[in-house]
Amino acid sequence: MEDKSAKNRIPETPRTTLRRLPKRGSRDREVINAILDEGFICHVGFAVEGKPFVIPTGYARVHDKLLIHGSQASRMLRTLSEGIELSVSVTLLDGLVLARSAFHHSMNYRSVVIFGRATLVEDPAAKMSALFALSEHIIPNRWSDVRQPNESELRQTTVLSLPIDEASAKIRTGPPLDDEDDYGMEVWAGVLPLRLVAGQPITDPRLLPEIDPPDYVVNYARRKPSA
Amino acid sequence: MEDKSAKNRIPETPRTTLRRLPKRGSRDREVINAILDEGFICHVGFAVEGKPFVIPTGYARVHDKLLIHGSQASRMLRTLSEGIELSVSVTLLDGLVLARSAFHHSMNYRSVVIFGRATLVEDPAAKMSALFALSEHIIPNRWSDVRQPNESELRQTTVLSLPIDEASAKIRTGPPLDDEDDYGMEVWAGVLPLRLVAGQPITDPRLLPEIDPPDYVVNYARRKPSA
Repeated sequence: MEDKSAKNRIPETPRTTLRRLPKRGSRDREVINAILDEGFICHVGFAVEGKPFVIPTGYARVHDKLLIHGSQASRMLRTLSEGIELSVSVTLLDGLVLARSAFHHSMNYRSVVIFGRATLVEDPAAKMSALFALSEHIIPNRWSDVRQPNESELRQTTVLSLPIDEASAKIRTGPPLDDEDDYGMEVWAGVLPLRLVAGQPITDPRLLPEIDPPDYVVNYARRKPSA
Repeated sequence: MEDKSAKNRIPETPRTTLRRLPKRGSRDREVINAILDEGFICHVGFAVEGKPFVIPTGYARVHDKLLIHGSQASRMLRTLSEGIELSVSVTLLDGLVLARSAFHHSMNYRSVVIFGRATLVEDPAAKMSALFALSEHIIPNRWSDVRQPNESELRQTTVLSLPIDEASAKIRTGPPLDDEDDYGMEVWAGVLPLRLVAGQPITDPRLLPEIDPPDYVVNYARRKPSA
């Protein structure tokens, strides 16, 4: 991936240098943001007394910050709010790559890794707008239909903000790359695309009668991959 | 999640004790295995000089081991093969949970976390059968159609084996759980199911003429969730 312009490029650091297959890497903010905006779940890694932990959680991106939220009682969030180093990964799986040799089988994917230290979002107004962003990230237009957080719920929610300042994307697209000698093999090769799709909405058994699912549920579609 | 029998239950450790919402947790091997067998990508967390890294990679489960493979040139695999502590997470997203309050929105998911130290698989026969398992995990029946790894490819591939001895699953299913006062709200609530589906196979531009995609591609379906 060529970066489009130096302006939107995140500076390289030892941790974000791709030593293997550097052509699959990018530090272009637009590329990184598109991946973050399409994903639902990030995996947060941190170390406690040298021992690693990886925990999946929801998130949202606002400008050049990644917002993570969770219960005030969450051990992970308490640990992270102390400002320890963390590593966050978002991975989108786009397809299975079927080559002619077992060795060259692969997956098409788009992933982002971010390194840094998170800070607590404490100001109630900033916290409320972070919760709005987290809601919009998952289901645009839902927020105004539901009861918004009250003071107690706001207190029970921890929001962390991680600057997206040390980050890179890694992307594989396209057909398998086989050894020249193998292209003559009489075996099917290509890509089997995979995507996350929404099914039929399942109505809450306790829903009041005669309420239909709104457009943003019935026509739910995740942002499309650019390629 | 109640464990079905003590026999298949993985012993609890401080790292696999769920302090919050323990009813969502399980240490039943069948539950853990079903999640691992459905996923494609795991996120591997490890610490180097106290700094955390999280990297997505393919895997397969064979009995009570998790196999991870990659290039012999991969920095991550070299680091992990030194037997450092690692944490592996597999997360399947099953749906978006739309509650009547912003606060009670959630996701349905099934996730597994494993802690431990990996060892290198060095014996060539064991390595070959690990590669077979990794291939079967992603596309059952593909292995016998393709050119199998030669000695050089086998040498270039690093395979690690992680015992699934300290692990737990965490699962959320079902409708939103709202505050009693909110159930009277006139807003749709329920679950929007999400699943990963295969699209139309994309034929390699260099494929020989008159080779159709095999059944295991055309009818590709991931293992179904049990519920």
